[in-house]
Amino acid sequence: MAGSSFGSIFRITTWGESHGAGLGVVVDGCPAGLPLCEEDIQIFLNRRKPGQSKFATPRKEDDTVEILSGVFEGKTTGTPISMLVRNTSQRSRDYSEIASYYRPGHADYTFDEKYGFRDYRGGGRSSGRETIGRVAAGAVASKLLATLGISLTTYTRSIGPVTIKTFDRTQIDQNKLYMPDADAAAEASAYLLHCMKEQNSSGGIVECIVNGLPTGLGDPVFEKLDANLGKAILSIGAVKAFEIGDGMAVASATGRSNNDPFLPGENGAIRKASNHAGGVLGGISDGSPLILRAAIKPTPSIASFQDTVNKQGKPISVSIKGRHDPIIVPRAVVVVESMTALVLADALLLNMTATMDNVKKIYTDK
Amino acid sequence: MAGSSFGSIFRITTWGESHGAGLGVVVDGCPAGLPLCEEDIQIFLNRRKPGQSKFATPRKEDDTVEILSGVFEGKTTGTPISMLVRNTSQRSRDYSEIASYYRPGHADYTFDEKYGFRDYRGGGRSSGRETIGRVAAGAVASKLLATLGISLTTYTRSIGPVTIKTFDRTQIDQNKLYMPDADAAAEASAYLLHCMKEQNSSGGIVECIVNGLPTGLGDPVFEKLDANLGKAILSIGAVKAFEIGDGMAVASATGRSNNDPFLPGENGAIRKASNHAGGVLGGISDGSPLILRAAIKPTPSIASFQDTVNKQGKPISVSIKGRHDPIIVPRAVVVVESMTALVLADALLLNMTATMDNVKKIYTDK
Amino acid sequence: MAGSSFGSIFRITTWGESHGAGLGVVVDGCPAGLPLCEEDIQIFLNRRKPGQSKFATPRKEDDTVEILSGVFEGKTTGTPISMLVRNTSQRSRDYSEIASYYRPGHADYTFDEKYGFRDYRGGGRSSGRETIGRVAAGAVASKLLATLGISLTTYTRSIGPVTIKTFDRTQIDQNKLYMPDADAAAEASAYLLHCMKEQNSSGGIVECIVNGLPTGLGDPVFEKLDANLGKAILSIGAVKAFEIGDGMAVASATGRSNNDPFLPGENGAIRKASNHAGGVLGGISDGSPLILRAAIKPTPSIASFQDTVNKQGKPISVSIKGRHDPIIVPRAVVVVESMTALVLADALLLNMTATMDNVKKIYTDK
Amino acid sequence: MAGSSFGSIFRITTWGESHGAGLGVVVDGCPAGLPLCEEDIQIFLNRRKPGQSKFATPRKEDDTVEILSGVFEGKTTGTPISMLVRNTSQRSRDYSEIASYYRPGHADYTFDEKYGFRDYRGGGRSSGRETIGRVAAGAVASKLLATLGISLTTYTRSIGPVTIKTFDRTQIDQNKLYMPDADAAAEASAYLLHCMKEQNSSGGIVECIVNGLPTGLGDPVFEKLDANLGKAILSIGAVKAFEIGDGMAVASATGRSNNDPFLPGENGAIRKASNHAGGVLGGISDGSPLILRAAIKPTPSIASFQDTVNKQGKPISVSIKGRHDPIIVPRAVVVVESMTALVLADALLLNMTATMDNVKKIYTDK
Repeated sequence: MAGSSFGSIFRITTWGESHGAGLGVVVDGCPAGLPLCEEDIQIFLNRRKPGQSKFATPRKEDDTVEILSGVFEGKTTGTPISMLVRNTSQRSRDYSEIASYYRPGHADYTFDEKYGFRDYRGGGRSSGRETIGRVAAGAVASKLLATLGISLTTYTRSIGPVTIKTFDRTQIDQNKLYMPDADAAAEASAYLLHCMKEQNSSGGIVECIVNGLPTGLGDPVFEKLDANLGKAILSIGAVKAFEIGDGMAVASATGRSNNDPFLPGENGAIRKASNHAGGVLGGISDGSPLILRAAIKPTPSIASFQDTVNKQGKPISVSIKGRHDPIIVPRAVVVVESMTALVLADALLLNMTATMDNVKKIYTDK
Repeated sequence: MAGSSFGSIFRITTWGESHGAGLGVVVDGCPAGLPLCEEDIQIFLNRRKPGQSKFATPRKEDDTVEILSGVFEGKTTGTPISMLVRNTSQRSRDYSEIASYYRPGHADYTFDEKYGFRDYRGGGRSSGRETIGRVAAGAVASKLLATLGISLTTYTRSIGPVTIKTFDRTQIDQNKLYMPDADAAAEASAYLLHCMKEQNSSGGIVECIVNGLPTGLGDPVFEKLDANLGKAILSIGAVKAFEIGDGMAVASATGRSNNDPFLPGENGAIRKASNHAGGVLGGISDGSPLILRAAIKPTPSIASFQDTVNKQGKPISVSIKGRHDPIIVPRAVVVVESMTALVLADALLLNMTATMDNVKKIYTDK
Repeated sequence: MAGSSFGSIFRITTWGESHGAGLGVVVDGCPAGLPLCEEDIQIFLNRRKPGQSKFATPRKEDDTVEILSGVFEGKTTGTPISMLVRNTSQRSRDYSEIASYYRPGHADYTFDEKYGFRDYRGGGRSSGRETIGRVAAGAVASKLLATLGISLTTYTRSIGPVTIKTFDRTQIDQNKLYMPDADAAAEASAYLLHCMKEQNSSGGIVECIVNGLPTGLGDPVFEKLDANLGKAILSIGAVKAFEIGDGMAVASATGRSNNDPFLPGENGAIRKASNHAGGVLGGISDGSPLILRAAIKPTPSIASFQDTVNKQGKPISVSIKGRHDPIIVPRAVVVVESMTALVLADALLLNMTATMDNVKKIYTDK
Repeated sequence: MAGSSFGSIFRITTWGESHGAGLGVVVDGCPAGLPLCEEDIQIFLNRRKPGQSKFATPRKEDDTVEILSGVFEGKTTGTPISMLVRNTSQRSRDYSEIASYYRPGHADYTFDEKYGFRDYRGGGRSSGRETIGRVAAGAVASKLLATLGISLTTYTRSIGPVTIKTFDRTQIDQNKLYMPDADAAAEASAYLLHCMKEQNSSGGIVECIVNGLPTGLGDPVFEKLDANLGKAILSIGAVKAFEIGDGMAVASATGRSNNDPFLPGENGAIRKASNHAGGVLGGISDGSPLILRAAIKPTPSIASFQDTVNKQGKPISVSIKGRHDPIIVPRAVVVVESMTALVLADALLLNMTATMDNVKKIYTDK
């Protein structure tokens, strides 16, 4: 199936394997006239690059992006924006061992079951490098949102047992874990060092807050804004749960505690007194900040020995060698932000066609 | 936007408002030759009917389905299956009050913001009655899955503070709350009576387990099986979180505890020793049971007074009158099951085209 | 496959068989605030009704439409518009003969090959009655276009050997053949009487002209306006060719004769001196009238004896009995117009999102 | 809008401008296990290359393809196949003149109207070079079809007033015009020389015949095989008409002459005695050869002076300079074949899911 596209109007198609010639994305449906340059994309890609901290894989990946089409004289033309990142640092090595068995927690087995064989070099299409296309596209979507005053703030909320207690936006970029709480970051670092010593890995939670979002984005039934955000976030490898607003906690809440009362806002506007809903009501953005969370599983590649089977189905014990992060979470921050931006850009464009008033604004005020 | 369709090959389109002429669904892409009759659909619709317990709204809704097309001589023909449920018991009443203000926790405000006005009678398109089309379609998908030996078991996992402690499948239909634990059901009933006395409502969790699923369903990138399940479940009104397998708990797990070792299975097959993953690896079904959960918020319509604003933005205090369930969860059980079945049927059909071996099996073994 | 939907933003899903309970359509994505009532739809449906002339089948079909959803207080709400036409006049008869063989020129054989069996009553899903859903939806699209000053004029251009020589718009509704040339209509009538006497049938050409279309509709590559119009028109049963502008004639033209020079228009606008292109350049509407044609094959059901085979593959000779038009063309006029209107409405909505200027017009002028 | 994708299961996304960094395509949904290498693609690309005859533009374009992903150890992996062709021979020249006015018959004006500005270098996205992505993807689709014994034969049927009178398949590659009739080719060559002397250009017709196609491809309503072929062919720049089978000629035919009688075939099969239908009945392939035609307009770029307006709307007279073919038709042959192959590959995959028998063949015979 054609499963590498995402979005309806603002639509992306990603491609590429971990150890092939390169990876990339085609962004189709971006409106004409958006200022865009390679630097806009590179800033995003640099946020997902490994080798930035002791908890990230030491391999060096340049991940330099080239815009191949869709931009002319510094602005998007309305035609597809194709972006390419060449694979440069993939060492040639012997993959015959990894080709011969199924790593626990990885997609080796399911790829073989689905396709009959797999590109076993570095995980192929199910590698974390697959997110390069998402992030490059997310940079374009973020640029579009920014022109309308919509901003996304994304960070690590928890790592293993360590959850942030305070929120200082300026802290996010001050630590390698992207935590908005310096003390939590220090505590989480210590925990990760412990994991590494144990040849183990840790999970965590990424949170994203969107400010400046207009009302009206999202549709009432299957295309609810939160449903599309959920799909977007759950399509990121290693994500096992998605929450909007209070998330799982609503299960033990009551209507009285969970409902957000409406209040008169400024200039005749209406606002909510609280935001348990996380910015959506009935699947449509309500003008409050959008709040979502992704639970990310621990890196499945660990050095300690694990039981598994080889391709012949015989039990073996394996230690996954190679350069692996003990935690995926910090590198997933920009991926969560990118997928969120993509959903919002698409919903923004779709919502333009919701009323005859808008139709007339475009065609008869022309 | 055309937001009332779901699925790609096995595709449904729902329509209808709470107090309009009726509600329905068109199921398009169902393979020809599936035995199907109205009774198959009615059994599913009856599971979501209100008026079945003291915790469900006392209004009587017959919700009798009529199959209008796509079935001939007891089998699906491969053409669209249109199903209709007439609205019969909607009392004519005065909606002018509800039309004049915004109910907290409801979509009244966001509909007005998006569309400029709304069908305010009983919630219109954002009513719980919107799920009728989903459930009718889910019955068809479930029938298809059943012919391949795939079965879904769905139940209430928790209500407010009460979570099941034991799992007895035969109990699920023995209590009005659809809990597989008789003691928990009794405790939850007591809790709900308390909520009602307080003019309050409760949230809860629905869980679904799928057995007999083949490997290979779902795609590696955006069309991951869990991503599509997440969208499906999060598109149900009132759902605020989605978990697959261990869900949120993976955030505090380690790689060693979270990885599922592979083991030799029967007849040369391979199976997993545990199932933290919940039946998917890399977005593709792995042959283990699929396990997912939906967190459902408390019914927003409560009788106790709440603050809100009217359409003019003036603060008022309101008590939502009418027949409202103090808990949505038990009626959502069949909706979660239906949406899950729809995703699986679609993924099953899509996966048929994954390999040249399959293509040849259809065209050259003909 | 889910093949009964058409359009992307303004999207329709049709359903129903000739002799089932009824036929209908769900129109999803129509902007909120469009005035709409059943009379708007009925006017269109009446144009495709049989029994209006001696060349149309004498069967009486009321084809009364019921709007089931999506309209509130006389205006579209932005939610799906479901429309239903009950089958009322289908006589119960013995279909065992028609079930036993394959009618030449019909889809009997291909349905059996594709689906394994078929609803053989009156052609089932491949009956001309399938167009009821298209026409009901086309009425909605036409209403939308009309509010922007876009008008469609559709008529019979030729029947068998008889082609119109003059164009008098007022004539179109003055003859049962919908020809804008009274003399040609008389000549065509005589030809059709001759066909009927011979137990034969005739083909013809439908032409549609669209005035008032803005520039910019359609996309440069696969979603060219003319490509989508072509698909729409060719999806009508019996259509075997599609032309835009000069159509087939461009093959023998030269660049000098075929190019349309640009000229200064009124108020600083630009217009074309001629319109060989038929209103599109590079797949995008150019502000000139859109001109398209559909070639429609002769009714395959003829009373004279034809060779064919039965389901067992044995050769037989058959005479198709029943009430069949000797010509499909006049009844196809409103179907061609409906499909054209659907493509244009969709392209209009999509084009709103083409530029950042439009995005800002909606979101920052709000 | 996201208008650069085509197909549903076997889905392609093209990108690139005439004078940008390059052009390419992502083929998503190709089944795993299809043998594929760059040579397969290059053979197709070479058929559309200019500089092969005196009637083709003398510019040298290498158009060397690189497969960037989706192929491993010589076989497709089921993941997206990304292909890249760098633009190498685009001379740097002064485009300020062409940027300042609207060429008749080109998309300059409509791009400006739609997007507000345009990449004016060599036509940008509306250049004939846009077809590189289509042809590279078509090569993959053709490879897939060939493994099932399906073959496409495509050729020039007419050029200006010269139409083929005989059909000798071996002749097609023996002349630069791809005509299956050596005499017609000679006559057409003379005609084109005349056009060139007159600083003029010519249109023509491309015809494609598909042999070996199974029955059952295509869907009964909007996704008719001929409707999708029509869209595919009409989405090629310069195509102004599409015919299937007898095409426009059916308009003057009678039912008796146009119906194709069924006959007993070999081994209990059924075949048609004639093929006016061109291989489809009711939108579904009937096992006969598929026959389609595309009418292609004369190259709009001609050296003789033409009237037009500049961007300020002032009338001017222009002579289009540069290297332009006096005829597009021969280079369009492989494009028509590619688009046909893409539609057929998609229809083949979709049709696999049409019956429960097929579903069981994949899942229970496993």
